[in-house]
Amino acid sequence: MDYSNLTNMKRENRNYINLNPLQTAGKLTEAAKKALIEFGDGYAVCDFCDGVLDDIEKPPVKTFTREILPKFLGCDTVRITNGAREGMFMIMHALTNPKDTVLIDDNAHYSCILAAERCKLNVVKVPNNKCPVDAIDVTLYEPYIKKHKPKLILLTYPEGNYGNLPDAKKLGTIAKKYNVPYLLNCAYSIGRMPVNMKELGADFVVASGHKSMSASGPIGLIGMDKKYAGIVLKKSKDYPNKVIECLGCTSRGATITTMMASFPEVEKRVKNWDSELKKCLWFADELEKLTFVLIGQKPHRHDLMYFRTDILYDISKKHKRRGYFLYRELKKRGIIGIKPGHTKSFKLSAYGIAKEDLEKVISAFKEIIDENKKLIA
Amino acid sequence: MDYSNLTNMKRENRNYINLNPLQTAGKLTEAAKKALIEFGDGYAVCDFCDGVLDDIEKPPVKTFTREILPKFLGCDTVRITNGAREGMFMIMHALTNPKDTVLIDDNAHYSCILAAERCKLNVVKVPNNKCPVDAIDVTLYEPYIKKHKPKLILLTYPEGNYGNLPDAKKLGTIAKKYNVPYLLNCAYSIGRMPVNMKELGADFVVASGHKSMSASGPIGLIGMDKKYAGIVLKKSKDYPNKVIECLGCTSRGATITTMMASFPEVEKRVKNWDSELKKCLWFADELEKLTFVLIGQKPHRHDLMYFRTDILYDISKKHKRRGYFLYRELKKRGIIGIKPGHTKSFKLSAYGIAKEDLEKVISAFKEIIDENKKLIA
Repeated sequence: MDYSNLTNMKRENRNYINLNPLQTAGKLTEAAKKALIEFGDGYAVCDFCDGVLDDIEKPPVKTFTREILPKFLGCDTVRITNGAREGMFMIMHALTNPKDTVLIDDNAHYSCILAAERCKLNVVKVPNNKCPVDAIDVTLYEPYIKKHKPKLILLTYPEGNYGNLPDAKKLGTIAKKYNVPYLLNCAYSIGRMPVNMKELGADFVVASGHKSMSASGPIGLIGMDKKYAGIVLKKSKDYPNKVIECLGCTSRGATITTMMASFPEVEKRVKNWDSELKKCLWFADELEKLTFVLIGQKPHRHDLMYFRTDILYDISKKHKRRGYFLYRELKKRGIIGIKPGHTKSFKLSAYGIAKEDLEKVISAFKEIIDENKKLIA
Repeated sequence: MDYSNLTNMKRENRNYINLNPLQTAGKLTEAAKKALIEFGDGYAVCDFCDGVLDDIEKPPVKTFTREILPKFLGCDTVRITNGAREGMFMIMHALTNPKDTVLIDDNAHYSCILAAERCKLNVVKVPNNKCPVDAIDVTLYEPYIKKHKPKLILLTYPEGNYGNLPDAKKLGTIAKKYNVPYLLNCAYSIGRMPVNMKELGADFVVASGHKSMSASGPIGLIGMDKKYAGIVLKKSKDYPNKVIECLGCTSRGATITTMMASFPEVEKRVKNWDSELKKCLWFADELEKLTFVLIGQKPHRHDLMYFRTDILYDISKKHKRRGYFLYRELKKRGIIGIKPGHTKSFKLSAYGIAKEDLEKVISAFKEIIDENKKLIA
């Protein structure tokens, strides 16, 4: 059998300007690329393991997970997981029983709903304020908590469609008032912007390494208040150094070493969040000059942005390639990350992309509109 | 803060001869090393994803998971997981309810017990025949099935201490007779030696990519009979293309591409299993000439081997470095993989190691014994 399609796989768009919000903050740093090769083999981090992943000192997993990350995130305890979704599942699974109620914002990622479904939970959604902003008013959690007595409340910070950033701190106060465990899904924030769990009043955070911490996936983490560590990180009765919800060890590969190697740069970029956000907002302003409309909270406070783009949609209706013209035209110009077929509206992120490259993107949109204007004249 | 310990991590033993059974079949192939770099970025396999990991055609995840792997393993359906343990948990979680009984061989890996504990199952162990062989007589499952009416039976094939390979096919017949779902943990076999689920009469197999398929972890797979696909791979009611037990997608990174890139070589080495095993048995014979005693089934049928090494233990009692002398002496000679401190007995694997390198290992043991013989004279 000819297996050349397996042994010579190329990522054809690897060096394009990539606007896909899933991918902009997951690009490996140079240090991570080196770690990837150094620790690429299966079980490569286990050379000096004594049975507990988080206690490995060579490479320094122990310092990373037990000191550096808790301090970075304002948590008492951090554990590495196989992703943010796996982290949400762990927490739900440890804190609840089937049929318990969990309160989740209407903007939650699908994987959060699946985690609850996997735990056989009753999911009650806190509504958003619908179009055009779709933001979550966290004060709405209060009547829902009173009515449904949830075992856990969850907020997506920010959500992955519009980049709306809800008032997580205010929800922290509400959670404390009703003494209900509060989980903040930070897959799109931790590693991009400052997040301090204690300051926000949350009991748990989950993060995604491949989405927002320049790590090779799948990897994520959970951070928690120490009062929950005994429940969520309960050890096996037969294997007293193994955490049940982690099934012992989680990220035993290049995923953890890339997260570690990227960390210094991640920490630095988080400190520079204000200027990064400013650049993203400038980019949005430039796109709005082309008649694109930024949807969601105003002022916008995250790099994930959703635009309504009527002009591109109008062109698509007349273009011989229909909705696919945009993808093709951008790709011709070295730009990817907007879903093929989307023209009416789409999301994008300018995170970590140099201003010169963003200028190329703006010019590309301009050109594409100008070249096709005759179709809608 | 000085982060050079994170940005410049080296795997100090990377080019040593490595006898660690966990690692011998997890070394990346040259093709996998290329895939690792090409798809190292977070979410790199998702460039052309329409929402289902197993349907991605660029890179060819779809062909790999839906055609190549099922054929290779004699399964109807295969899904990628984050590891063998995660696969066992998925299957248990989908098939059982808390307090149900699961029947597990006494040689099972700890993670299998943790998976059952995480599902709150009643674990009943089928005993092994104790020292010195510790093998499982699968006919013992029959009275246990009659007595305990398990919802699932599990067999470790082979187990990870002695490399004993139980009669999985005979257990297949027993499982069919009592109509009980039968899961074979092949973390140490799939990718090393031929395994055909249907021929063995199993309903499920789990495998480990980082342990035995030359993939960068964490990654594994589950294979199953189609009659269980509807249960284990049940879709979300709100997200009809997302598998609940997978939380949507699993291996969205370099882990899946390295598994794919290594596959042609893995398939080839599995075909050459007889000659690989012959080489391993030759190696064992040579070690036995040094008075080491191979423990476990005779004839031995796997590369994972456990030796009792009284002579090294006797030396350790007189050596100034005590039990650590062996690790140090081997390392000086470019050999690793035997746990630091172990001299009385240890496990090792010669899988994939060239005969010339194994000759170096034999000579090293000889030398170490000769140099220290005076201590026990």
